[in-house]
Amino acid sequence: MSAAKDYSYETLQCSFTSNNVLHVQLNRPKNLNSLNDAMWREFQECFKQIKFDPNVRVVILSGSGRLFCAGLDLKEAATGLTNSDESDVGRRAYRLRKKIMDFQASFSAIQDCDKPVIAAVHGGCIGGGIDMITSCDIRYCSEDAFFSVKEVDIGMAADVGTLQRLQKVVSNDSWTREICFTARIFDSKEALRHGLVSDVFPKLEDVLAKAKEIGKVIASKSPVAVSGTKHLLNYSRDHTVEEGLTYSALWNASMLQSEDLEKAIVASISKQNASFSKL
Amino acid sequence: MSAAKDYSYETLQCSFTSNNVLHVQLNRPKNLNSLNDAMWREFQECFKQIKFDPNVRVVILSGSGRLFCAGLDLKEAATGLTNSDESDVGRRAYRLRKKIMDFQASFSAIQDCDKPVIAAVHGGCIGGGIDMITSCDIRYCSEDAFFSVKEVDIGMAADVGTLQRLQKVVSNDSWTREICFTARIFDSKEALRHGLVSDVFPKLEDVLAKAKEIGKVIASKSPVAVSGTKHLLNYSRDHTVEEGLTYSALWNASMLQSEDLEKAIVASISKQNASFSKL
Amino acid sequence: MSAAKDYSYETLQCSFTSNNVLHVQLNRPKNLNSLNDAMWREFQECFKQIKFDPNVRVVILSGSGRLFCAGLDLKEAATGLTNSDESDVGRRAYRLRKKIMDFQASFSAIQDCDKPVIAAVHGGCIGGGIDMITSCDIRYCSEDAFFSVKEVDIGMAADVGTLQRLQKVVSNDSWTREICFTARIFDSKEALRHGLVSDVFPKLEDVLAKAKEIGKVIASKSPVAVSGTKHLLNYSRDHTVEEGLTYSALWNASMLQSEDLEKAIVASISKQNASFSKL
Amino acid sequence: MSAAKDYSYETLQCSFTSNNVLHVQLNRPKNLNSLNDAMWREFQECFKQIKFDPNVRVVILSGSGRLFCAGLDLKEAATGLTNSDESDVGRRAYRLRKKIMDFQASFSAIQDCDKPVIAAVHGGCIGGGIDMITSCDIRYCSEDAFFSVKEVDIGMAADVGTLQRLQKVVSNDSWTREICFTARIFDSKEALRHGLVSDVFPKLEDVLAKAKEIGKVIASKSPVAVSGTKHLLNYSRDHTVEEGLTYSALWNASMLQSEDLEKAIVASISKQNASFSKL
Amino acid sequence: MSAAKDYSYETLQCSFTSNNVLHVQLNRPKNLNSLNDAMWREFQECFKQIKFDPNVRVVILSGSGRLFCAGLDLKEAATGLTNSDESDVGRRAYRLRKKIMDFQASFSAIQDCDKPVIAAVHGGCIGGGIDMITSCDIRYCSEDAFFSVKEVDIGMAADVGTLQRLQKVVSNDSWTREICFTARIFDSKEALRHGLVSDVFPKLEDVLAKAKEIGKVIASKSPVAVSGTKHLLNYSRDHTVEEGLTYSALWNASMLQSEDLEKAIVASISKQNASFSKL
Amino acid sequence: MSAAKDYSYETLQCSFTSNNVLHVQLNRPKNLNSLNDAMWREFQECFKQIKFDPNVRVVILSGSGRLFCAGLDLKEAATGLTNSDESDVGRRAYRLRKKIMDFQASFSAIQDCDKPVIAAVHGGCIGGGIDMITSCDIRYCSEDAFFSVKEVDIGMAADVGTLQRLQKVVSNDSWTREICFTARIFDSKEALRHGLVSDVFPKLEDVLAKAKEIGKVIASKSPVAVSGTKHLLNYSRDHTVEEGLTYSALWNASMLQSEDLEKAIVASISKQNASFSKL
Repeated sequence: MSAAKDYSYETLQCSFTSNNVLHVQLNRPKNLNSLNDAMWREFQECFKQIKFDPNVRVVILSGSGRLFCAGLDLKEAATGLTNSDESDVGRRAYRLRKKIMDFQASFSAIQDCDKPVIAAVHGGCIGGGIDMITSCDIRYCSEDAFFSVKEVDIGMAADVGTLQRLQKVVSNDSWTREICFTARIFDSKEALRHGLVSDVFPKLEDVLAKAKEIGKVIASKSPVAVSGTKHLLNYSRDHTVEEGLTYSALWNASMLQSEDLEKAIVASISKQNASFSKL
Repeated sequence: MSAAKDYSYETLQCSFTSNNVLHVQLNRPKNLNSLNDAMWREFQECFKQIKFDPNVRVVILSGSGRLFCAGLDLKEAATGLTNSDESDVGRRAYRLRKKIMDFQASFSAIQDCDKPVIAAVHGGCIGGGIDMITSCDIRYCSEDAFFSVKEVDIGMAADVGTLQRLQKVVSNDSWTREICFTARIFDSKEALRHGLVSDVFPKLEDVLAKAKEIGKVIASKSPVAVSGTKHLLNYSRDHTVEEGLTYSALWNASMLQSEDLEKAIVASISKQNASFSKL
Repeated sequence: MSAAKDYSYETLQCSFTSNNVLHVQLNRPKNLNSLNDAMWREFQECFKQIKFDPNVRVVILSGSGRLFCAGLDLKEAATGLTNSDESDVGRRAYRLRKKIMDFQASFSAIQDCDKPVIAAVHGGCIGGGIDMITSCDIRYCSEDAFFSVKEVDIGMAADVGTLQRLQKVVSNDSWTREICFTARIFDSKEALRHGLVSDVFPKLEDVLAKAKEIGKVIASKSPVAVSGTKHLLNYSRDHTVEEGLTYSALWNASMLQSEDLEKAIVASISKQNASFSKL
Repeated sequence: MSAAKDYSYETLQCSFTSNNVLHVQLNRPKNLNSLNDAMWREFQECFKQIKFDPNVRVVILSGSGRLFCAGLDLKEAATGLTNSDESDVGRRAYRLRKKIMDFQASFSAIQDCDKPVIAAVHGGCIGGGIDMITSCDIRYCSEDAFFSVKEVDIGMAADVGTLQRLQKVVSNDSWTREICFTARIFDSKEALRHGLVSDVFPKLEDVLAKAKEIGKVIASKSPVAVSGTKHLLNYSRDHTVEEGLTYSALWNASMLQSEDLEKAIVASISKQNASFSKL
Repeated sequence: MSAAKDYSYETLQCSFTSNNVLHVQLNRPKNLNSLNDAMWREFQECFKQIKFDPNVRVVILSGSGRLFCAGLDLKEAATGLTNSDESDVGRRAYRLRKKIMDFQASFSAIQDCDKPVIAAVHGGCIGGGIDMITSCDIRYCSEDAFFSVKEVDIGMAADVGTLQRLQKVVSNDSWTREICFTARIFDSKEALRHGLVSDVFPKLEDVLAKAKEIGKVIASKSPVAVSGTKHLLNYSRDHTVEEGLTYSALWNASMLQSEDLEKAIVASISKQNASFSKL
Repeated sequence: MSAAKDYSYETLQCSFTSNNVLHVQLNRPKNLNSLNDAMWREFQECFKQIKFDPNVRVVILSGSGRLFCAGLDLKEAATGLTNSDESDVGRRAYRLRKKIMDFQASFSAIQDCDKPVIAAVHGGCIGGGIDMITSCDIRYCSEDAFFSVKEVDIGMAADVGTLQRLQKVVSNDSWTREICFTARIFDSKEALRHGLVSDVFPKLEDVLAKAKEIGKVIASKSPVAVSGTKHLLNYSRDHTVEEGLTYSALWNASMLQSEDLEKAIVASISKQNASFSKL
């Protein structure tokens, strides 16, 4: 595992687990990887960097220490909310809206980075942690993982992704609403049964082993094909079937002219590995 | 269980099972709780009343007698359809459209009432009964429950919610279409497996016990948070992720200025219950 | 089983398995039913013919020979792609876009034919085969069936339906993305668990027996009701709940004036079979 | 002019100017027809009544006294806004949102009443008056008419229709924004030049004469055709061309079966007037 | 003017007025170019042929004889509507819907043919004629031209384009609705004032001269640029600004790689004409 | 006129013309203010700065030197396009798409800055200049101004705003398409007649005088009201009327709680000027 020198962040620790597979670790273990201002900011920066770095083709996201993510850093948030010197309700609303949209952009950066992101969850994944992993492409967890859509317990509706994405990635709307209304904790089995994760492994090290293996496989494919696949899945989720088809036809009008097709077909027929240029 | 004096309906019987949890029972047991004109009308009235009643924070919906709901009252409907004194096809179409939209409004009132509605199904849930429960937030049933998307058996495509909502709340489109095309009966296990309900309990009393317990939990949370959560889940289901996020940011621009946040956070830290004002 | 004389195609073999149930078989067994230009073209023609043929009420789609469908005929496709006499990138893009949209139309014809289409999968279902079956209404398979979203392995993002429809018919987005990014093979159990198929049977003959039985049931229902149901399910999938309701009310403004309602209600009450006119 | 007995309102005065043409007059001349709570409420009631009254086929809307409408009754509104006993920002936001949506419903009732509504403006049309007339179908004014999108001058963005509808009914976006940002007064000539009205007449009596004449013409046409035309214009404004076409085809699938077609065609050929039944 | 040999139609007469500019003339002068079944069908065929014919870059559409187009051929339509052997309302609705959508496709073929279509109107343009010209890109007329949205006069709402497109191409919604509700005739000046046409010329020969001149200019430009411009204008009309931008960026991702850019830039700098390959 | 010290750009020169009104001048007069890479980049930076600068409430945008803007700097663009070291068509498409989206973001920054932007055009406004001004709110020009949608003349479809926004800000679709297909020059009168500008003044100094006067007026209004007005106009342009209303109600749920309402109403009644806090 080589260190990823260019990825230098205070709250995120990055390293390459194999060629083109970047491992991003939430790195505030003493604070249970809770989301403070620095982490919100660095999330955006890090995933924008990833987007434009042709050396990264797959990302693994996990948490250091006891658990994956405890959600919002309440202490810091509380200070931020109450310390405002603005008393006018309209102006506070105006600023709050900008602030929330800024937070949202941190997780949308995961979605928009054009590279598959695999979340490897262990311990706990609470509140903002759910918002975070629903922005990822693939979700695995360890048996000890537990989850909670915690927001109603702090008096608010979730606003950085859970209520927007959760119902689009899982299979049971009745269950989705129950866990959102009650904020109750559920375990890895329940997460698997209802499709929040697609596989459960004994321990974090097993989850990471699986993520690295899958990451390696994906990184070996044509990056034109993989990034197009992510892009079109996201586009199609948010559009009608017909609009999804129209857009995909236009996408491939240029992408099918790439050299990767011939390379991949030759490799596929000859049962050898192809080597694809950077995208 | 205190009677809900203000909720006086012929076809619906209402009572409070605990603070702020209203139990609405379909109350035409002799007619298997089939949907007649009175029930369609009272559904709209009742759920509009609920919407504007700050004393109600959660609703439980169940059927009295042998089963949950046998669907449309065919006798009454047949009379209504054939007794028309209008012979012009265009004018009949114009009136039918208004009538259907009026029926639709009865179940959309469940969706739009801003409070979580828990359906507790037993016995049978047929035709219009499916349209009804897919408008609810959470669905539980007893082991003896059985279901049928019955409409094709009376020569029509379902038009008061099933075809619009069912595929958005369950997990298997192939199954959804099979049960819609064949009108075949399926049991509680199958309903659970494909996500129409999120849990099955031995008997109706167990279903209701669970519904009341969950209802109590939800009613204890901030109503600002809970109603916002329902509102944003509904909004986001029908919009792109990006539009869902934009709208949620605007919602919370005012709602995060509520006193409930501080109350909830203090309660959460001190592990005590908070008491929230009416919404 | 009577031969369907009017359905004469080179790559598709058609026969009636019972009244109004048409069995369409992919008929290039020596080429593993791979999609060549003739099959793309005949798919469109065949399903347009089905759309306007009142004698067909249900369609069963299966593959002849060892497996269901091996995907794109790479040999033919490769020739097509490289033999272009056009060197200008813009003009090639313009033509490719038209070509892809033409391919898309072949499978959208399944979706738009107004009759339920049941896919009966066995052996393998690879690449374009997945695009094909996600356009169908109901999906069953045999135990030996295996699947692969193969496109990234030939250097491209899927563009004739998989990326647009798969996530809307299955239950686990994390799994969907994993199989799309890795192109790995998965078996019938996995397909069932995540909702790609709704039932698995021991052998192809069992799958077909089930498909024919279900087909017979659906064909016995009012065609006004069944085609309306398919039409409204497709419309509602791609629209908000409210727009789905509005459109359905308008649909039934005329369809509820059909004679089928009375026929079906009478039959339903008298427990006899109704006979419905052609649509 | 016969009095419209069934239309009894405090703030609106109704009379039939000819068969099936209802004249609705804003009737608070001492308060310059400013919008108070009674008028907001009665607007909704009146236009719902119109919607379901087959005797009304066209509506003319004008103001009594010196001018058309001075906008919001600031005195009453101010009292309403400041008298709130609710101090929590979140709860106030929740109530304000409901209140605004209720106001919006008053003018949307004009749009949704299925009958053409002709606004006849004179004197002044300020603030809420603009919201009101942009909900109408046809707008005429007298030479002395003047207009102002007044909302920014009371510290708010218009929220009951102007910002949503104005740009969709006029022709010059640069002008639209200028008058919305500056709240400046503009006269009838400018209103005509940029398409806010489609004709200007010397005096109110001329405007009304024209409105009555046009109203009579429209009322003589098939109500199936006219209400369909309004409904489809509104639908199409808010949808893509393709969705507009799809919906219109479904609309006419039943409406072309009306007797009105034959009646109208016969009348058209024989150059005689047809008499159409109530809708 | 060379005859366009490959364009052989009964109701449409085609000739090239200059290189790559095809003149399509409605050719039923004895029937005032009214739309009969043959013309509906040939419209679709002709504009599909145009779409795939690289020799056509611009189309001019005009009428032969006394006027442009008198609308639907009522005699033929009446026969078609009343001769139906189908008595069931539902089945008639099903067929009518298909028929209307087929008519719509005739004019949508103008919109979808990827080449600018210039309508040159003279004499009268009635009913279906308006539907037709609103599908065109550019509209000119002679001074003697008159227009009528005639459909309400035959008891129906327009359903082949006028209600869907008219309000999106003109400037005054109040006027649009007035002419749609009243079916009154308006002249060329009014058409110009409200933006239905963009220029008026003394006689048809002047209109055609202008159309040919403009056609020649457009035909001399890069077909990659021109067809892209039409495609993106149509796409953007039906989408949000943001979606329009996203789609356009993808379109130009391949089209900016065309040789036409360099050719055009060189020609532009050297003030010479470029010659562009067929598209 | 005080210099705007904080706004230091190479290609843009900024100064305050009065309190809170910032004048941004395109400042490459020797290159006819053509868009080079520096200007694209600085546009984004400058308008993001404006967005977050509470001291700016209105922006005036004009060009220094002989004309407003000559469009893309062809020399620089040509170098950029041909110098690419990437030969793979797919990868070039991927990069071009990112580049175009980056250019689009420069002008969308005008739209998203929350403050009204007034374009003051003189001399020429060509190609990219049209894209730029259609992103502005208000457009004025001098008599000598001329315009050209130049893109087809360099072999491409416009992709940074014109094709997306032009038809939504002007009044005559036929004219819009003519000028987009032909790239012909049109003068200030034609721009006024079809609504591209809303007023024409003799000379640039008159245009600027008017812009400053209007800017001063707007800057004196409540910034809560003005920025909300711009925000809601943009939102409503891209949504249905109903969605526009829903969103606006939510917006004002908080904004009507601002102190600006009372201040503005008091000022309005007392006919004095109010002073509003920064937003």
